[in-house]
Amino acid sequence: MHALTQFSQGEITALWAVLGTAVLGLLYAVFLMAQVLREDQGTDEMQRISRSIGLGANAYLFKQFKTILFLILLLTAALYFTAGVKYIAIGRACAFLMGSIFSATVGFVGMNLAVRGNVRVAAAANRKSFSQALKIAYRTGTITGMLTDGLGLFGGTVIFMIYGEKAYEVLLGFGFGGTLLALFMRVGGGIFTKAADVGADLVGKIEKNIPEDDPRNAATIADNVGDNVGDCAGMAADIFESYEVTIVSAMILGWASYGHKGVIFPLLVRAIGVIASIIGTYAVRTKEEVRDAMKAINIGFILSAAVSIVGFALVGFYYLRFPESQEPLPLCFTLGIPGLDLRPVWTTLVGIILAVTINRLTEYFTDTGKPPVKSVSESCQTGHATAIITGFAVGLESTVWAILVIAISIMVSAFIYQGAGPTFIAYGVSMAGIGMLTLTGNNISMDVFGPVADNANGIGEMAHLPKEARQILADLDAVGNTTKAITKGIAIASAVIAAISLFNAYITNISTITKLTYEQVAATLSVSNHSVFVGLLIGGAIPFLFSSLTIKAVGRAAFLIVKEVREQLKDKEIWEGKKLPDYARVVSICTAAAQKELIRPGLLAILAPLLVGLLLKKEALGGFLAGMILSGQLLAVFMANAGGAWDNAKKLIEDGVFGGKGSDAHKASVTGDTVGDPLKDTAGPALNPLIKVMNMVSLLAIPLVVRYENSPTVSWMAAAVAIALVLVVIHKPKPSKEELEIIQKA
Amino acid sequence: MHALTQFSQGEITALWAVLGTAVLGLLYAVFLMAQVLREDQGTDEMQRISRSIGLGANAYLFKQFKTILFLILLLTAALYFTAGVKYIAIGRACAFLMGSIFSATVGFVGMNLAVRGNVRVAAAANRKSFSQALKIAYRTGTITGMLTDGLGLFGGTVIFMIYGEKAYEVLLGFGFGGTLLALFMRVGGGIFTKAADVGADLVGKIEKNIPEDDPRNAATIADNVGDNVGDCAGMAADIFESYEVTIVSAMILGWASYGHKGVIFPLLVRAIGVIASIIGTYAVRTKEEVRDAMKAINIGFILSAAVSIVGFALVGFYYLRFPESQEPLPLCFTLGIPGLDLRPVWTTLVGIILAVTINRLTEYFTDTGKPPVKSVSESCQTGHATAIITGFAVGLESTVWAILVIAISIMVSAFIYQGAGPTFIAYGVSMAGIGMLTLTGNNISMDVFGPVADNANGIGEMAHLPKEARQILADLDAVGNTTKAITKGIAIASAVIAAISLFNAYITNISTITKLTYEQVAATLSVSNHSVFVGLLIGGAIPFLFSSLTIKAVGRAAFLIVKEVREQLKDKEIWEGKKLPDYARVVSICTAAAQKELIRPGLLAILAPLLVGLLLKKEALGGFLAGMILSGQLLAVFMANAGGAWDNAKKLIEDGVFGGKGSDAHKASVTGDTVGDPLKDTAGPALNPLIKVMNMVSLLAIPLVVRYENSPTVSWMAAAVAIALVLVVIHKPKPSKEELEIIQKA
Repeated sequence: MHALTQFSQGEITALWAVLGTAVLGLLYAVFLMAQVLREDQGTDEMQRISRSIGLGANAYLFKQFKTILFLILLLTAALYFTAGVKYIAIGRACAFLMGSIFSATVGFVGMNLAVRGNVRVAAAANRKSFSQALKIAYRTGTITGMLTDGLGLFGGTVIFMIYGEKAYEVLLGFGFGGTLLALFMRVGGGIFTKAADVGADLVGKIEKNIPEDDPRNAATIADNVGDNVGDCAGMAADIFESYEVTIVSAMILGWASYGHKGVIFPLLVRAIGVIASIIGTYAVRTKEEVRDAMKAINIGFILSAAVSIVGFALVGFYYLRFPESQEPLPLCFTLGIPGLDLRPVWTTLVGIILAVTINRLTEYFTDTGKPPVKSVSESCQTGHATAIITGFAVGLESTVWAILVIAISIMVSAFIYQGAGPTFIAYGVSMAGIGMLTLTGNNISMDVFGPVADNANGIGEMAHLPKEARQILADLDAVGNTTKAITKGIAIASAVIAAISLFNAYITNISTITKLTYEQVAATLSVSNHSVFVGLLIGGAIPFLFSSLTIKAVGRAAFLIVKEVREQLKDKEIWEGKKLPDYARVVSICTAAAQKELIRPGLLAILAPLLVGLLLKKEALGGFLAGMILSGQLLAVFMANAGGAWDNAKKLIEDGVFGGKGSDAHKASVTGDTVGDPLKDTAGPALNPLIKVMNMVSLLAIPLVVRYENSPTVSWMAAAVAIALVLVVIHKPKPSKEELEIIQKA
Repeated sequence: MHALTQFSQGEITALWAVLGTAVLGLLYAVFLMAQVLREDQGTDEMQRISRSIGLGANAYLFKQFKTILFLILLLTAALYFTAGVKYIAIGRACAFLMGSIFSATVGFVGMNLAVRGNVRVAAAANRKSFSQALKIAYRTGTITGMLTDGLGLFGGTVIFMIYGEKAYEVLLGFGFGGTLLALFMRVGGGIFTKAADVGADLVGKIEKNIPEDDPRNAATIADNVGDNVGDCAGMAADIFESYEVTIVSAMILGWASYGHKGVIFPLLVRAIGVIASIIGTYAVRTKEEVRDAMKAINIGFILSAAVSIVGFALVGFYYLRFPESQEPLPLCFTLGIPGLDLRPVWTTLVGIILAVTINRLTEYFTDTGKPPVKSVSESCQTGHATAIITGFAVGLESTVWAILVIAISIMVSAFIYQGAGPTFIAYGVSMAGIGMLTLTGNNISMDVFGPVADNANGIGEMAHLPKEARQILADLDAVGNTTKAITKGIAIASAVIAAISLFNAYITNISTITKLTYEQVAATLSVSNHSVFVGLLIGGAIPFLFSSLTIKAVGRAAFLIVKEVREQLKDKEIWEGKKLPDYARVVSICTAAAQKELIRPGLLAILAPLLVGLLLKKEALGGFLAGMILSGQLLAVFMANAGGAWDNAKKLIEDGVFGGKGSDAHKASVTGDTVGDPLKDTAGPALNPLIKVMNMVSLLAIPLVVRYENSPTVSWMAAAVAIALVLVVIHKPKPSKEELEIIQKA
């Protein structure tokens, strides 16, 4: 750790303390792991089902890792060659690998624990213990949460301790690794999960009128696998990425504004968050006679929030002293103590408030008790079309309030740093991002709780558990749906804040490379500049294109599943329940389809910013990033909330309102839910990593863009690649031999 | 015309020639009007139906004009007081009134002629003459087209002749008047037409299984009225507005770049367009044995395009001489002649190519013969949900190519003006807008042809015309659907180009007021500035909010219609066809609902930019405009093309594919069409005037914003108004006493 000589003794202690906390978080994860694995696994039947899910999920992940391994190695080499100085180059390449591996680990371990947790939750319910079932399900989620916290913090801190003042360029590699893997996990997992889900529903619920998770449906195992690879592995990698990217950008901007303390403070904030999450998540429990899972989870959250706010205030008070500072600050930032600067603490608090507000907003637009969902279920009475239109309008409206809240947070952060120059303002915004993700441990616990409860419920159905156990599992599943929906809002908002921070880092970076001041670079990025405006237009269109690709991919894959399940159901023995269907075949079709569909969105995400930079220059790339963040945010919130509203409108009707199950209103609500599924679980969530990946690629590509943007040869080459990319993107992939066989058979 | 002393003799001649051409266009409209009105009006039955439609349409328009009269007068006064110098103030107020009146006139006359044309088209079909029916329908459209051309050109030229070098500030008033009226006509007409359409279909086609336009359905007349007030009056006002706004911005930017010639050249281009449209539209005819309406219309378009391109080249060659210019230009701009500068001609050509490309793109995504629509109808086989999802994906994808084409046009225009300073580049872009709308006469003819043919078909159905006549009308209706869809693309793209030109004018204007250079102002509008970024986010959200408001408004109004039609059908005599339903009552419910729903989107459009400017300063307002243009364009194209694709997927199935009428696939396609209707005919088209109105308000508000943006008092007041606006926007309007009665009765 040769950079440690740059630090004072106090700083070294602080860094070691942060590192220690990161390790503590990881140890806590291991401790919970042992605790969960010790639990009873239920009947043989249950274990067999759980094993099928586990095998399918791992088969998917291994295939996925294999698919992208080559790309990862290629990019590792590319990153090695892009950096100038050798020891930076090695660091960046290694950090990229580390980021990818950490992200993969979070996804892999989280998913495997979820698979193991499911059956144990079902077994606990079978023993008629609600409190045990809740505890296992929630702690299974916490394992992923603490892995995210621990690995994210560990990576950033270690790189900073090794590279010190040069850490910036290496951190970029770390961020990019996590981001890229998250993109693939999100897109691939999202396509897999929804293709299986929609395929299973179209044949099972709609054509054959058999219940969800009926063992005769060949797609049920794939559906459950999908929950794990999409909602556990994908979501975990996504939040890991935001967690990582916000710390990377806060460190970059902290360095440019406050120097050492600007970098170490966000690390300390994160360390406090880890401790707060450990305390809060461990407190989640309910008494057998109360059975209120939501309340227990909320109490844990509030506890964590309280611990962290007190922690920030204390650390800020003792650490943020700048005796040499001459700036006269208002009393609320100095408390009258000369040299104290509490502005970073305040902006962190802005982030926490932002997180809570976004949670409330998401809840408002997707909760069954609130007007928007009610209006959607009401409109189901007049048919499929009105159900869709109302959900569409609800989704559109929800984007407005989400964006207003984000805009206000940015303004307040900027207001706190009023008069303090653009890098300080940018740092303030990035600290809001840090604050927002402080309670990542709790958020991921809540999120993973969703698919774990969902799968436990599925296992309960397939293993024909007694009624009382089924009720426990159904109740947990309902709570899981809510917690899952709520964390989606945070994932999107954090992606936007992270992207904005990266965007600010983009400008800082250009000014370093071109040796112009921040202000001079900023001036070239005026929206009145036609290049910037053209970039803005193109960037704004990318999330639309990307969503169109992923939605169509789900459609194509689901089509294959439908054909396959229909074919298998033609077998009389399967239909009569005398023979089990070939679950593995559906899983492998899903896996292959998802992998194939990954390529085009992946290429688009990596190449588009590079090509815009090389063809239209760095100004257009700046506009491109801004436009992409804007339309990505709008579209992601729209899809998440419209999807959530349709989903819960269906639940409301299934609870007996407007005619209940089987009524025409219910059919219309199923249409709404099916439309919403690929939006809220594939296309929407995939936009989070997309906007971060594109920002990361741009950050890494700036030296290249600056060097080659005026070279005609490179422009021609870039134009050729751009045309090739357009052709690849509009090309409808031909079905493989195996797929053709499926299509023809049916 | 006291400003004429500023011009040379040649310039004065040119201006009079332009004015003469404008009058010629108007005379041509009068000539066609006499021609159409001379035609046979058909049977008494047909005349009675046509009269009902006419009465309803006029009742609607008068109510609409009455509703906004107060606002127009208020704004006239406000504009009078915002301008500094008295004679500018009077001019601006008068020009605003003139713009509103012209826009209203285009809508009013166009709609009334359409109403009169309908029945004459039906009568011609009844005489079994396809060629006559086509000619009357098309020429009815041309009347509106030539009114748009004539009045738009007349107004701009007269103001320039009176105010000369000061015309700029007065032209803003003219543009704003047209824009504001178009917004109300679009939103009000759009809500009316879709509420009636959806209401009529939900009860008629879906509940009662009676054909469209069945006389027993109390909403049929309202449905036909809606076609006229929405598609004729609304669309005409919308394109009139783009026509006006592009000329206003080209004149402003022309002044800032080339001086006199920069202003007069776009006027000359427009004059050539008028002549070309007269020639081309008059040539539209088909032989009785050929019966190819589409081909006839296309030949007219190509003829007009050829005439205008030759005209541009000639005028450019003789007029664009700048002997004092020292700039060395490439040969393609000078043809080797010293002082010749053909760059404005080239950018005009870019606009024409843009128009043709956008037409092709729209056709590709919405034509029954092309893959996108085919894929949507295919997916109707697997149910309502897949039909929606596929159309959704098609819509998303179509935005990308539309935006790419616009981005390329901007880049090419900028490339033509490479190295010539930002105002020249902005002028180039605005000339592309001028080029794009050169053939407005033809475009409006094609567009209005749609509702005229649609209504004639409806009259044919209601009046029980013989089969052969009905076939002619059905064929014309099908062609009308295509031409109507195609022109929608142009309307959106022209709105975007107009908005971008206005946006450039915005910056020019700030630099005039603040006495900073264009470059200095531009530098403050960097996307890296947090104010600009926040403005970008908020601006981007506005079209989403606006669309949500208009879509919900349609839903509420349609709900009332459904209840009323159901109630009337309970009357046995009406159901058995012995008594006519009370058509007028449905029309008046629609009218009242549309007026009420107009208020909130209208307030939002006018106040939002003003509040952003006063609360967050002019930089944020710049970002706001950019974000709004971006997301407005994306959303408008998405809604238009998804809607068009769903509509034609239904037609494809009705033509017998995938099971034809009555099949499950057909039901799914009806769902798609019903979802698409409010998107493509209400919310989508309303975005065109929205983005122009907001740019206009910003342009007019700059002096106010610059003067008061730092005043705390004004900020507090603005904040209060902003909160009030938010409350008004989220407030769900309570049903009136009359509405409550309808709701309770049913």
